[in-house]
Amino acid sequence: DRRARLIVTGADQPGIVAAVSLILREIGANIVSLDQFSTDAEGGRFFQRTVFDLTHLNARRPALEATLNERLSSRFGLAWTLTPAGTPKRVAIFASKSDHCLLELLWRHRRGELEMDIAMVVSNHPDLANDVRQFGIPFIHVPVSGDKKEAEQQHLRLLKGNVDLVVLARYMQIISDDFLQDVGVPVINIHHSFLPAFIGAGPYQKAKERGVKLIGATAHYVTKDLDEGPIIEQDIVRVSHVQTAADLARQGADVERAVLARAVQWHCEDRVVRDGNSTVVFR
Amino acid sequence: DRRARLIVTGADQPGIVAAVSLILREIGANIVSLDQFSTDAEGGRFFQRTVFDLTHLNARRPALEATLNERLSSRFGLAWTLTPAGTPKRVAIFASKSDHCLLELLWRHRRGELEMDIAMVVSNHPDLANDVRQFGIPFIHVPVSGDKKEAEQQHLRLLKGNVDLVVLARYMQIISDDFLQDVGVPVINIHHSFLPAFIGAGPYQKAKERGVKLIGATAHYVTKDLDEGPIIEQDIVRVSHVQTAADLARQGADVERAVLARAVQWHCEDRVVRDGNSTVVFR
Amino acid sequence: DRRARLIVTGADQPGIVAAVSLILREIGANIVSLDQFSTDAEGGRFFQRTVFDLTHLNARRPALEATLNERLSSRFGLAWTLTPAGTPKRVAIFASKSDHCLLELLWRHRRGELEMDIAMVVSNHPDLANDVRQFGIPFIHVPVSGDKKEAEQQHLRLLKGNVDLVVLARYMQIISDDFLQDVGVPVINIHHSFLPAFIGAGPYQKAKERGVKLIGATAHYVTKDLDEGPIIEQDIVRVSHVQTAADLARQGADVERAVLARAVQWHCEDRVVRDGNSTVVFR
Amino acid sequence: DRRARLIVTGADQPGIVAAVSLILREIGANIVSLDQFSTDAEGGRFFQRTVFDLTHLNARRPALEATLNERLSSRFGLAWTLTPAGTPKRVAIFASKSDHCLLELLWRHRRGELEMDIAMVVSNHPDLANDVRQFGIPFIHVPVSGDKKEAEQQHLRLLKGNVDLVVLARYMQIISDDFLQDVGVPVINIHHSFLPAFIGAGPYQKAKERGVKLIGATAHYVTKDLDEGPIIEQDIVRVSHVQTAADLARQGADVERAVLARAVQWHCEDRVVRDGNSTVVFR
Repeated sequence: DRRARLIVTGADQPGIVAAVSLILREIGANIVSLDQFSTDAEGGRFFQRTVFDLTHLNARRPALEATLNERLSSRFGLAWTLTPAGTPKRVAIFASKSDHCLLELLWRHRRGELEMDIAMVVSNHPDLANDVRQFGIPFIHVPVSGDKKEAEQQHLRLLKGNVDLVVLARYMQIISDDFLQDVGVPVINIHHSFLPAFIGAGPYQKAKERGVKLIGATAHYVTKDLDEGPIIEQDIVRVSHVQTAADLARQGADVERAVLARAVQWHCEDRVVRDGNSTVVFR
Repeated sequence: DRRARLIVTGADQPGIVAAVSLILREIGANIVSLDQFSTDAEGGRFFQRTVFDLTHLNARRPALEATLNERLSSRFGLAWTLTPAGTPKRVAIFASKSDHCLLELLWRHRRGELEMDIAMVVSNHPDLANDVRQFGIPFIHVPVSGDKKEAEQQHLRLLKGNVDLVVLARYMQIISDDFLQDVGVPVINIHHSFLPAFIGAGPYQKAKERGVKLIGATAHYVTKDLDEGPIIEQDIVRVSHVQTAADLARQGADVERAVLARAVQWHCEDRVVRDGNSTVVFR
Repeated sequence: DRRARLIVTGADQPGIVAAVSLILREIGANIVSLDQFSTDAEGGRFFQRTVFDLTHLNARRPALEATLNERLSSRFGLAWTLTPAGTPKRVAIFASKSDHCLLELLWRHRRGELEMDIAMVVSNHPDLANDVRQFGIPFIHVPVSGDKKEAEQQHLRLLKGNVDLVVLARYMQIISDDFLQDVGVPVINIHHSFLPAFIGAGPYQKAKERGVKLIGATAHYVTKDLDEGPIIEQDIVRVSHVQTAADLARQGADVERAVLARAVQWHCEDRVVRDGNSTVVFR
Repeated sequence: DRRARLIVTGADQPGIVAAVSLILREIGANIVSLDQFSTDAEGGRFFQRTVFDLTHLNARRPALEATLNERLSSRFGLAWTLTPAGTPKRVAIFASKSDHCLLELLWRHRRGELEMDIAMVVSNHPDLANDVRQFGIPFIHVPVSGDKKEAEQQHLRLLKGNVDLVVLARYMQIISDDFLQDVGVPVINIHHSFLPAFIGAGPYQKAKERGVKLIGATAHYVTKDLDEGPIIEQDIVRVSHVQTAADLARQGADVERAVLARAVQWHCEDRVVRDGNSTVVFR
């Protein structure tokens, strides 16, 4: 509980890096790593991720935050977030019947590879209950029928105040704008195609019909526009005429789980910063 | 002049492989490699590529062709093509101002990596004349102004009867349906995106705006529908938020030239067989 | 129970493909796919994998085998194996404490992606018993202490006659030559480096020290020479100076499980044929 | 002539980032990008690459250097180098008979992709003279016969004081320790294998014999131990049993030229910092 991460974003201007590092030096923090990026040398948008060690972090956090407010927000008009590295994000995973993305996250979490706590798994089908509970994680079945509103109300009661992130691990239901606004935390989705190719349903069938030689998967933040949110990570695998659409789905599953796991990991380590409809990923 | 390639396609049915190999054995040919693919075990489409050695190939070709006609076309209703491996395809390369795809082909050709003769390079700009002629290859400047028809007439006079393949190596002009029909040989294009993402102009700019994490290139046969023809080969390269649209274009150029070179090479070795709007690529 | 796979190997000579396809046509089989490879057009080694459908396969198998003996073995001196596709190979998986390769195989098997029956999991440690038994698969703990001989005797009692393949899924014990000979079935191992780089123990530590920019994994058949057996599959992942040796091990684990899963799948589908200390993999 | 790059290395200790950014702020420089890496949070080695803009850079450089000396070297015991981005490095390329790596560098340089001036191409064979001179670059033929000493003396006369970097683009001669010490600038080599696999001569033949499924190339700084210097970049390409050793050499050539081009580009942009026998590459 001495390590923290500071994300600073805003309009680029001379002196920001110096201001941040001076603040950290004055309080006695030791910078462990620093990544900085500007979209343009002049008049661009500024992004910085700094990891530092500070003894008695928790006790001194209020003082540090006051200083950041005064010297970054007021003086430079910058936005910042400070996250203690020792407090993992609380995550809810949504799934339907496909197990590959869900199990990948549960398994990596058990191995200690993902810096997060899995608060619950929510599904509109009961099929995966057993798999999930073997990991010692609550599985909550919320059926989605005619009126979606009711299910979303249940979701919100489960999530509000309890989680910092929602991950859609091949959850086969469309998320409403209202839900997105009400839930108040980021939602990450895995799309089973190399976006923006094959937007919408049935991407592997479409890929087979188009005769592509590579298939892919895309992890992105969910926004109100379907499959149009900021992309966090993508990857592909080579295919050929030999594969059927079913084969593509099977091979694509491997890309989906790898891509989603990376995206969730990077998000939980505060490496992903939104920049309009894009992302800056500090790796 | 003893090696030949036999491509057989048609409706799948029992006995085709046996029929082909029996024909070849009877004439004394030695099968060097045989690749076979059916889209379905029952009622599918059949594709076979056979490479064989036969002494006095040229002298015995008429007899072999008569047998193939009788025992493959008539009996099975199959289509076939027989190509002597020693006769490279004659190719015309079309370019505009970008040199990377053109030079890659010229350079690989000089190294003996591409089984083809480059009959000419045609361009709507004079800029690359010097580069091309240093390779000892004719460069023909056909300006394209208001009326495209005229340029296409010139193109046809240059190409008809003289080439077996046209390669568009970043040729920045739309090819008309009439030209495609009149030229009577396959036309391969390199599109600077991972189709079907970013169809049309300015794909790198669009890729930057969409914030993708991979960019790609696609080599395909040209059909009357822009960017919709059968895909031969695709590849990608990883990018990040750091790259500008100009950087993407620069990095993408490397993928473009690699993908186009592979597609042209495979076509010239008779490894690519069209299957509707897809391709079967025997590698 | 109508589909079978025929592997034919031996010294290349004219007429083999014709002979095989004629045999299959005569018995009324329909060739589904055929892959053929010769190391050299003249005097090379010949490899062919043919998948075919034949009604009443089991009843007619003795007759077919007699014909293959007569017309392939006797006449051409070729070796062949005939495997009904409907009879999955019986596999024993050996593991120690690492779960990633083992769980990947169990999980893919449950999804129906691997054409095999997992007869048992054998381990020198009890740690993974629970994980394995949740999949409904027997877990057998065979401790290995001072005298390895005893453990190997136990292994042989478990395996002899019961399995067609042994997979070492990060089993951290050296296999003796005697065991290899006695067990009488192929043994596949996953080595956690891109062989032949970093042979032996501690490859990730060695990779960190050497400062490589890519790390890899290698699945190979086990022979009496450690890490020197025929390679089935390899893959790599990009790393940088940022990763510690522990990070490399974590990232490498993903490559290991993917590479091992592919190698086991291909072996079980009779796609891998040994060629001296190399392999021919028909994909 | 306002942009510069500052590389700082040494023993990690609190306050370095703050010190550097304060120095730059005081002089009125604007940080364009900053990358920082420590091998360990405590007691590690520290690496920082900072790109900044400063008006009248050249005029103010002496003052800045004095400050860096006082506040980085004396106070923290750090090493630093300051490079104006507008002054490209002067490079000598050594080649023998293979053209692919050489032409790739010449061609990328002509396209403006490599931030360097090519002062000369030196070769022990005359074969590539024409190719090189077409790019307007001096080609100097220095035959290497019995006594290598004489050739190396000639090399030194050509290079001393004239170049900042020597690139061995498939130069098939061993470089002596004496030469390395005397030349006084970094020497980058491309090795045609995925080091440390297949050290020494004939890597493609060895790769074929070992039956690997991937082949690679490695760009590294040359040290007195053959093929053991710090690795800058590596990459691989997938191969199969189908390829002969000659095919591997042909396919490998594509990896070689891509890997060497990236390594040279990163070196010329001061992105590569040596760390013992490894490198830190800021990308």
